[in-house]
Amino acid sequence: NVNPDLASERQTASFSVEKLTVWLDGGVECTQMRRAMVEAIEGDPVFSRENQYFQSQNERYEAAVRKAVHLQKKMHEMGWTENGPEFKHIYRAVSGDIAFLLHRVFMKSISVLGSDKQIAKWIPLATQYQLIGSYAQTELGHGTYLQGLETTAVFDTTTQEFILNTPKISAMKWWPGDMGRSATHTVVFAQLYIHGKCYGVHPFIVQIRSLQDHSLCPGIIAGDIGPKMNFEHADNGFLMLQNVRVPRENMLNNFCEVQPDGTYTRRGSQQINYLTMTTVRISLIADEVVIPLMKACTIAIRYSVVRRQSKLKPGEEEAKILDYQTQQEKLLPQLAAAYAFHCTSDYLQQLYDKGYSEIQKNNFDMLPELHALSSGFKAIITQYCTSAVEICLRACGGHGYSLLSGLPSLYTKILASCIYEGENTILLLQTARFLIKCFMAARAGQPVPPSVTYLAAKKLGKCPARNKLDFLSPDIYTEAYQHTAMRLISSTAAKLQDLMQSGVKKHDAWNQCTVQLVQAAKAHCHYITVKNFTETVEKLEPRAGIQKIMKHLCDLFALHGIFSNAGAFLHDGYISGAQMDMVTASYLDLLPVIRKDAVPLVDAFDFTDKSLNSALGSYDGQVYQRLYEWAQKSPTNKQISPAYEKYLKPLLHNTLSKL
Amino acid sequence: NVNPDLASERQTASFSVEKLTVWLDGGVECTQMRRAMVEAIEGDPVFSRENQYFQSQNERYEAAVRKAVHLQKKMHEMGWTENGPEFKHIYRAVSGDIAFLLHRVFMKSISVLGSDKQIAKWIPLATQYQLIGSYAQTELGHGTYLQGLETTAVFDTTTQEFILNTPKISAMKWWPGDMGRSATHTVVFAQLYIHGKCYGVHPFIVQIRSLQDHSLCPGIIAGDIGPKMNFEHADNGFLMLQNVRVPRENMLNNFCEVQPDGTYTRRGSQQINYLTMTTVRISLIADEVVIPLMKACTIAIRYSVVRRQSKLKPGEEEAKILDYQTQQEKLLPQLAAAYAFHCTSDYLQQLYDKGYSEIQKNNFDMLPELHALSSGFKAIITQYCTSAVEICLRACGGHGYSLLSGLPSLYTKILASCIYEGENTILLLQTARFLIKCFMAARAGQPVPPSVTYLAAKKLGKCPARNKLDFLSPDIYTEAYQHTAMRLISSTAAKLQDLMQSGVKKHDAWNQCTVQLVQAAKAHCHYITVKNFTETVEKLEPRAGIQKIMKHLCDLFALHGIFSNAGAFLHDGYISGAQMDMVTASYLDLLPVIRKDAVPLVDAFDFTDKSLNSALGSYDGQVYQRLYEWAQKSPTNKQISPAYEKYLKPLLHNTLSKL
Repeated sequence: NVNPDLASERQTASFSVEKLTVWLDGGVECTQMRRAMVEAIEGDPVFSRENQYFQSQNERYEAAVRKAVHLQKKMHEMGWTENGPEFKHIYRAVSGDIAFLLHRVFMKSISVLGSDKQIAKWIPLATQYQLIGSYAQTELGHGTYLQGLETTAVFDTTTQEFILNTPKISAMKWWPGDMGRSATHTVVFAQLYIHGKCYGVHPFIVQIRSLQDHSLCPGIIAGDIGPKMNFEHADNGFLMLQNVRVPRENMLNNFCEVQPDGTYTRRGSQQINYLTMTTVRISLIADEVVIPLMKACTIAIRYSVVRRQSKLKPGEEEAKILDYQTQQEKLLPQLAAAYAFHCTSDYLQQLYDKGYSEIQKNNFDMLPELHALSSGFKAIITQYCTSAVEICLRACGGHGYSLLSGLPSLYTKILASCIYEGENTILLLQTARFLIKCFMAARAGQPVPPSVTYLAAKKLGKCPARNKLDFLSPDIYTEAYQHTAMRLISSTAAKLQDLMQSGVKKHDAWNQCTVQLVQAAKAHCHYITVKNFTETVEKLEPRAGIQKIMKHLCDLFALHGIFSNAGAFLHDGYISGAQMDMVTASYLDLLPVIRKDAVPLVDAFDFTDKSLNSALGSYDGQVYQRLYEWAQKSPTNKQISPAYEKYLKPLLHNTLSKL
Repeated sequence: NVNPDLASERQTASFSVEKLTVWLDGGVECTQMRRAMVEAIEGDPVFSRENQYFQSQNERYEAAVRKAVHLQKKMHEMGWTENGPEFKHIYRAVSGDIAFLLHRVFMKSISVLGSDKQIAKWIPLATQYQLIGSYAQTELGHGTYLQGLETTAVFDTTTQEFILNTPKISAMKWWPGDMGRSATHTVVFAQLYIHGKCYGVHPFIVQIRSLQDHSLCPGIIAGDIGPKMNFEHADNGFLMLQNVRVPRENMLNNFCEVQPDGTYTRRGSQQINYLTMTTVRISLIADEVVIPLMKACTIAIRYSVVRRQSKLKPGEEEAKILDYQTQQEKLLPQLAAAYAFHCTSDYLQQLYDKGYSEIQKNNFDMLPELHALSSGFKAIITQYCTSAVEICLRACGGHGYSLLSGLPSLYTKILASCIYEGENTILLLQTARFLIKCFMAARAGQPVPPSVTYLAAKKLGKCPARNKLDFLSPDIYTEAYQHTAMRLISSTAAKLQDLMQSGVKKHDAWNQCTVQLVQAAKAHCHYITVKNFTETVEKLEPRAGIQKIMKHLCDLFALHGIFSNAGAFLHDGYISGAQMDMVTASYLDLLPVIRKDAVPLVDAFDFTDKSLNSALGSYDGQVYQRLYEWAQKSPTNKQISPAYEKYLKPLLHNTLSKL
């Protein structure tokens, strides 16, 4: 029973939706596997998210624990492995709404930072959930700047123990997931002191709750940090340590060790730590950012062909809101961005795989580029997609604002991605530092990593486009992006040098350039995104209409970027005002072209109704019926409010005589 | 016990904080009145918002009803009048967190649309809360386009009644506040039919709940629409009508009437309806938009001088985050915007007062300008301030994401202002229609309203600025804004004409220009904002340092706008690339200047800690202590989760033997 306004949109697709889905998944086998897993999970009532929008933080937490425990059994039954390709699908199928995600980080950190002996002791217990782990790094007063952590671990040679303490309130661990109510153990990062000397931050396994009755261990104060903008299912916690003693063997010692007499030894490379951050940032782009944007686009675009409002022409019936240019201009660039960043995510994964195989051969050359790109892309993609989800929400008007649309929770959750795993501004400045370094090297004729070789090229004078159709040429717009990135990097490098030559100290000069450095880093990442999208489209087979529609999306993404950041392209006259009018014309011309395929383009993301969990976005488009049905389930309709008896009745009781 | 990092910021203010507060309030008497009222309300435990962040939708609703009922008593006791200047202060003091706001709209609509007889009957009952009213306009399938409403009211001459019906699901009333659980009566907007002929949308008073036991009246289906992104305290409702009969005298008939025989008469001006919308839009700018932004700035700026992170210089202690250029560039333009839009809000109020006094003299000439300006400003100010609050939230990192910071609820509430009282894109297109009309008139030598006389002026060729200091001249930047608004309006008018001359039909041509029309409307409102801010600053007395700091804020607001929309200014070469570098330099130079006074500038907003309700933003800056204290009050820490017994214990029970 599909709404006819939505059904008609599916009859005119210019490409094969199924083929596009398979391409997005990375092959027929992947699509089959994903669908089979989604079916297994969605068919299991334990994983239902039906009442999610009505639940309290306590109820959400309990459901998340139930799901996590059940999932472990289910994985065993189904033969799904923890580190196989399955987890990605599981995570998508449960929409991340399970407990013990930090337990996974606990295990990961022991695997990477622990010795073989430590791994042998802790990993089997953790795998069987015979303990529940967490990862206690961030403190109330300290986030991104790890060296600033204040928790202390003092080695006591007499007892062969570390004594852990929270010296003041700002040193309290704050935010770790799974720690507020679940965890029995955690990895605590603390400043190591031996014989009064500080050796910097090290990781220690600390038991925080009794395995017998789950009560807090002696010297431990821990609890939940309370309500957040989302993540009601997660028990983000706080932890204070008061003379908590752990045995010497609880310091994770794959890379450094404390001998019984207090001798400190360090071995191996620290660079591997960067690799862990890199892999986390790359995988969150797909799982926590691009998929939520795809969902938001699906909801907003389906709703926009069901919703009718006002008239385009007098005398006609009310128009589908997606037929208004302004609505197209809100939503279609976000749809193009979802495809663009899907490609970027693949690109980063390939780059990582390549880098990782080199590292296994003890070649660390790719690490700086990998770190710089993953930092910058984490920042721009989370930022772009967060804004994009918000645009989708607003574009659905009042109904988008209802939790039942699914959009508010997508927004409040994706917003967190701008903050966690490295604050975005700090990450962009790391990318900028890499770019400035490479720029200097390139100018000095030294070799630079592949993604920045353009910094060695000569600047182009002017954009050669002569009419609006020229701006549909990937060469034309990719070069414009390249030129702009280059200009911003070189002009900021020049400002930095000027300041230092005029006597400003290095650190002050850097701080005075940071606003522009951030712009330069963004421009570089935007350029690489456009370049990679065009290259991906070129490689597509022209069959089944997919290359053609993807080319349109790529053009739209690129021209939308120029249209919205016009100043950066006009600044030195590379693009003239007259050419910018051509960009605008080509950009606006693309909107009605892509609008025709908008519904098939979101159908290809292949989200089930259960996964969208949206009254506005389901496949059948029965928007109003579903809003009404779902609203009736709200607890506000299941209880006569005590407010009537207490407050309203006394007011209203003698009105009748006066009416 | 003020945090020393925050205390030191207050010792170096370049101006009198108290004098600035008084100026913001509009005079010493106003400040005194506001403070006395805040004290009376905050001293009353009924109005406490202490546990708000932990409450369910049901609890929030009950608290809001309790507060509303109590407020009525309190107003009577204190001698505060419903329509006096007091309500603004009350609304600010309770942060809008009370029930029966739509009851006020119910009363307003009867006062404006009802006859004297209707007013005499209903208003006294409503004033005493002997009935609770609501305002049922929006339908599930129909919002901004009122003519599309589907609810019907058929006049039955035999019984002298109107028969009201909801003919299909999309016609159900949806969203009205106070209707889901509280209201006994509502004003229903329905298509009036007499003898089979439709006379358009009219308002009818309909009883929906029993005055004896609050049960739904016969033929009424009503309830709560469920959870939203905010407004948990409000019982937004749905309403279906099935052959509900109301007597003839229940149609509000100040402007039109149905005679007993079905004869329909209309009298008076319809334009008064525009005036109601205008006054609502103008008052929401101050109450729902500018004040929340001022709160967000207060929280984020105070936190940013308490929070320390990383080092600006090696060897020094960690730096206050507000000392980083990037943090200044995030927050200080939002602070400047709060002051700018405070001035715009005053300007609109004065314009409205002038227009209203003209209308009372039966002169309706100002109405189109008033309508166009209030629409456009409602749109750009809600949009700008919503983004600004989000920037404040993100700038506080992880702690900003905690509900306890107060920022998430400010954001999720202000976001709604982009949607209600007219969807922003539609409002901007109404402004654009007015601008295009005035532009054509000006070109034809006809007179135009005062705010758009610049459309008749000759275009200036180039910006005359020769160095970065020139861009601190209000004439220079105001002219740049004027030029840009003019260019966008004239080029869009030209495109519109070209399309029509090439044979595109008027409505299609309009739709094809709407993206650019929205840009033009925004540019106009931005120009008026800058112009009004500069004029306000010029009029300030130079005493007490206030004019000087306000001049800095005005410069920052103006230059930030040019810096962020560089393309619009560079497009035709009015500002050159070299001049844009001067703008950037002056803009960045202003940041450390205003940073020095940032804390005094937010102190001047004079919010109490209770009103901010923020662990990050209170006057004493004891951020970490307060986060910890408040977190402990969370229900997640007051209950042992059933999840332990049910799910965790069975897993953990035999771990001990293995450790």
